[in-house]
Amino acid sequence: MRLLKERNIEDIALGAAVLGTGGGGDPYIGMLMAKQAIRDYGPVELYTLDELNDDDLIVPTAMMGAPTVMVEKMPNGDDIVNAFKSIGKYLGKPIRATMSIEAGGLNSVVPIYTAARLRLPLVDCDGMGRAFPEIQMVTHTIAGIAATPMAMSDERGNTVLMETINNRWTERFARSITVEMGAMAMIALYAATVGQLKTASVPGTISQAERIGVTIRSARQTEEDPVNTVREAVGGYLVFKGKIADVQRRTEAGFAKGDAFVDGIDEFAGKRLQMSFQNENLVALIDGVPVVTVPDLIATLDIDTGEPITTEGLRYGFRVAIIAMPCAPQWRTPAGLELVGPKYFGYDIPYVPVEERYG
Amino acid sequence: MRLLKERNIEDIALGAAVLGTGGGGDPYIGMLMAKQAIRDYGPVELYTLDELNDDDLIVPTAMMGAPTVMVEKMPNGDDIVNAFKSIGKYLGKPIRATMSIEAGGLNSVVPIYTAARLRLPLVDCDGMGRAFPEIQMVTHTIAGIAATPMAMSDERGNTVLMETINNRWTERFARSITVEMGAMAMIALYAATVGQLKTASVPGTISQAERIGVTIRSARQTEEDPVNTVREAVGGYLVFKGKIADVQRRTEAGFAKGDAFVDGIDEFAGKRLQMSFQNENLVALIDGVPVVTVPDLIATLDIDTGEPITTEGLRYGFRVAIIAMPCAPQWRTPAGLELVGPKYFGYDIPYVPVEERYG
Repeated sequence: MRLLKERNIEDIALGAAVLGTGGGGDPYIGMLMAKQAIRDYGPVELYTLDELNDDDLIVPTAMMGAPTVMVEKMPNGDDIVNAFKSIGKYLGKPIRATMSIEAGGLNSVVPIYTAARLRLPLVDCDGMGRAFPEIQMVTHTIAGIAATPMAMSDERGNTVLMETINNRWTERFARSITVEMGAMAMIALYAATVGQLKTASVPGTISQAERIGVTIRSARQTEEDPVNTVREAVGGYLVFKGKIADVQRRTEAGFAKGDAFVDGIDEFAGKRLQMSFQNENLVALIDGVPVVTVPDLIATLDIDTGEPITTEGLRYGFRVAIIAMPCAPQWRTPAGLELVGPKYFGYDIPYVPVEERYG
Repeated sequence: MRLLKERNIEDIALGAAVLGTGGGGDPYIGMLMAKQAIRDYGPVELYTLDELNDDDLIVPTAMMGAPTVMVEKMPNGDDIVNAFKSIGKYLGKPIRATMSIEAGGLNSVVPIYTAARLRLPLVDCDGMGRAFPEIQMVTHTIAGIAATPMAMSDERGNTVLMETINNRWTERFARSITVEMGAMAMIALYAATVGQLKTASVPGTISQAERIGVTIRSARQTEEDPVNTVREAVGGYLVFKGKIADVQRRTEAGFAKGDAFVDGIDEFAGKRLQMSFQNENLVALIDGVPVVTVPDLIATLDIDTGEPITTEGLRYGFRVAIIAMPCAPQWRTPAGLELVGPKYFGYDIPYVPVEERYG
């Protein structure tokens, strides 16, 4: 166990934005809330799975919906507490700790807020090892753990609880309630024991996000090649370097879809990269040939600072480096690829692990 | 207490269609289900409120959504049982009986099915004394009783429970989940004690529906003036007799809105009635002058048989009588008129009780 203090939160948020692979939501408001909660309630205990008992019950907490809404309609914090307590009451069992369901951006810091407010521990793991857009896209689903009972709460005091026959129905009902709640809801779901989570989660991702954040911050100060430093810290591969020549965006079925086109520089001069995204970066092609696909991670970094750029932040003229990282091993199983492989997102491209191309 | 047997169900359904004032849904499938359940599980005990203890807990059950969907996607019956049991589990208290939330059409027979299946009594009352389209439009709301906890279940096995800050939020979330469940959901809500229901419900409406049904059936056989017989049985007033000259329909915000135009015959010859509906008949005007408005009941009867015609059933050339009946007294309070008065439905017409015009 170690303590997460106020100064750790910015590093976690910064590093989580790399794992967010262009999505995962801007963690700014969530970060402010988590820092304030730590000031008010004290530091948060961060446990590894091995430090807890196998039958301890863990319930993740998260924000669902459009993170951009948070800027205008700030959660009051009671909403996430309500969602968490509703699940506890419904299960009729004590909950030992909370965890992150998504290791990207906003949802890396939301459970830190929950943990601080309720003086509960946080577990150092998550259900994706990156960001994904839908509720069923978690390693819990592969392990056969139900998303429900799930609780959703809004800042007015409304709470919705559901029990569904599978995790896709959870996504369907929850998406619709999120819209009614004003495009944003606080959720608690995927109750599981520590024993289950030892195979059903991606371990160590809060610490990993923090390490990445520390690396980016140091790289900025020491004026090394920041992209290379970050790439080494994440155990990733350099896919491309170039200047953004065009960004095409469209909204389809609630997704922010689009493509960014990058003209190569340095060793990539004369080549063109196309990166397709749906909230997150999903597929990268160089001169029409696929080089990295989901579920492996594709991050866009600012060449000068090594800082991650979200898909919404992509702009003409930016000088960027594209790096790729291996996804959690669960995603490479047939069940994992069925949930989040290129086909699910509508790309008729076979999945080839990033190490096979770049390792 | 008396027993409802298979042969009582058709009379209740027929009479409830008059109280449904053109809406309330076709009770056909619900009636078949209720009759089958009585065959399988035995007759249903019907209690008046006075025959129960004041602290007995009553939970209404109903169908929400588009009754037309039932014809294609028949409820399996377990859905309504699931909704009812979820509320019981959530409340953690024994439920003494179920009741009808709406005294019109389908939702007069759905709770009979619930009662038979679960071998629970049915209470002889409802929350409207007629049909209305939205969840908050019940006498419970006027009495300050919360719609939630509310449970919704579908035929697949999904269940959604909610706790909302007021009954309009219940309507909002429930409407959206109903759409996701396939335009039809089985619901249990508005838990209340018998003591509360003595002022918060409309008493005797199951028996009233049955009496009306018996009257229509006898009138058919004895070849009296059936419309007049039915009018007397409901304690209503004859507003108009004529031939339907035109029916205009449009769908707005999920409502089946429209207007029927009727050219007078007999003592109404030379006059024209316009009847505006939104699922239910809401306003009747003769030569442009409002004569009856919601919340008073407006029913369209076939002149030759005295049988009620729903708004969907209105067709050019039908010879119809329009009768009006006083609504339950709760609807005539300021709180009642705010919930279901002409203004709520978008008509800028003051409410004048039907007895003041016709009494």
